[in-house]
Amino acid sequence: MSDIKDIIKQTLLLGRLDDECIRVFADKAQRIKTNKGQVLFIHEDEAESFFIVVKGWVKLFRETLDGTQAVVDILTTGHVFGETSIFEDGLYPYSAEVAEKGEIVSIPISLLKSEIEQNPKLSMAMLTSMARYRKQQDQELEHRTIQNASQRIGCFLLRLADQGASGPVVIHLPYDKTLVASRLGMQPETFSRALGKLKQATGIYVKGATIEMDSLDQLVNYSCAACSSEFPCKDIAANTCSKDSGSTDSGTAKKCLNA
Amino acid sequence: MSDIKDIIKQTLLLGRLDDECIRVFADKAQRIKTNKGQVLFIHEDEAESFFIVVKGWVKLFRETLDGTQAVVDILTTGHVFGETSIFEDGLYPYSAEVAEKGEIVSIPISLLKSEIEQNPKLSMAMLTSMARYRKQQDQELEHRTIQNASQRIGCFLLRLADQGASGPVVIHLPYDKTLVASRLGMQPETFSRALGKLKQATGIYVKGATIEMDSLDQLVNYSCAACSSEFPCKDIAANTCSKDSGSTDSGTAKKCLNA
Repeated sequence: MSDIKDIIKQTLLLGRLDDECIRVFADKAQRIKTNKGQVLFIHEDEAESFFIVVKGWVKLFRETLDGTQAVVDILTTGHVFGETSIFEDGLYPYSAEVAEKGEIVSIPISLLKSEIEQNPKLSMAMLTSMARYRKQQDQELEHRTIQNASQRIGCFLLRLADQGASGPVVIHLPYDKTLVASRLGMQPETFSRALGKLKQATGIYVKGATIEMDSLDQLVNYSCAACSSEFPCKDIAANTCSKDSGSTDSGTAKKCLNA
Repeated sequence: MSDIKDIIKQTLLLGRLDDECIRVFADKAQRIKTNKGQVLFIHEDEAESFFIVVKGWVKLFRETLDGTQAVVDILTTGHVFGETSIFEDGLYPYSAEVAEKGEIVSIPISLLKSEIEQNPKLSMAMLTSMARYRKQQDQELEHRTIQNASQRIGCFLLRLADQGASGPVVIHLPYDKTLVASRLGMQPETFSRALGKLKQATGIYVKGATIEMDSLDQLVNYSCAACSSEFPCKDIAANTCSKDSGSTDSGTAKKCLNA
């Protein structure tokens, strides 16, 4: 079991602070075991804490009055959530629910608020982390505009893969297909149809949560034509788990899990 | 013609700095007249400046190799763009083109970079501005997931309207319909069909760029059911032109234009 300071050091938000500052956060941090389906907080609840995922998966989402859900993000090891409530009148901007059981760390939001006002290094780290997230969201919106559903699944798989690999590749879905569909903003039936079309178009082989292919080229040719960035994805290449796993990107997440 | 300091004070990013700091930016600022279609910079160009829109509209977008465009945002008076390149290895994260002629202010990005490292008030302002943008993007992604095309057009119109109005309402589109379609991530033909469906469902009357209705309720009932936020939209209510027109939201933009 890793030390709480090491967990904090794994995050993009707090990882590069000096030891004294990390100790301040560690002293107030609480480790919490989580169970699948556990609701951690509700959209527009008053924020008392922000969180770091130690293990497992956490789903961030918002809901309409009739219960339709929009998934904001799905996070794992090293990812921080709830922290932007300090810019949202102290209210959580989404709900959070445990998608796969594990562990989280809870830290009082008041501590983040006071430290960020005093510590320029922390506010720069928060800016970097928000810029990273902004880029990811921009790309997500771009893909929702340009890519069809099958291309988006292909892109999701490519971001899980070791993008430097040559030859045959095996990719494991990090969580169940229904959740992958929500993460991609698709209905489960749209996801199934689109996955079927992706299999036909690229010859990838899908068995449960495992996807096999002769080489990544099949997916690259199919998906990356409808993207303004080049393959391999620069944002993934720039991420390493130890330095900045605070990115909310699933590809990075997978690498951290595997590390 | 407003003074360059007043233009800077209109922005969310720089507006609340003290006079001395605003003078530093104003001294290095350049006013530039813009013409429709003018390309201001290209995605991944090295960033030398960031910009403030004084008048007119600027389209931010990215393009795939085959020329398919994804519109990132469309900005007007008081909006800042290009500023996040300081977190993107100094490269612009999108291209920028003038959508409607007007005027912009250009300020060296090196100045922003050095000031932000020294001035905690500026880094907090940048955090607030990025948090605002993040919320807007989160909502955009939510709507792309939950709302159908007609509901999204309805939502776009509601955000242009005076949300406190009772009785008959007239809304003017701020730029041409093709651009509205791109802004909403739709093909022009999808936009036309969806607008037709919206007219049928809500009884709104569309003539060119003018939309009339007996009351906003028609659109609210139709669009806001598929949104996790309540009407009136809190983010618009919280915005006032003088305080924080740096929001990249079209509703605010319209208010600023009308102010």
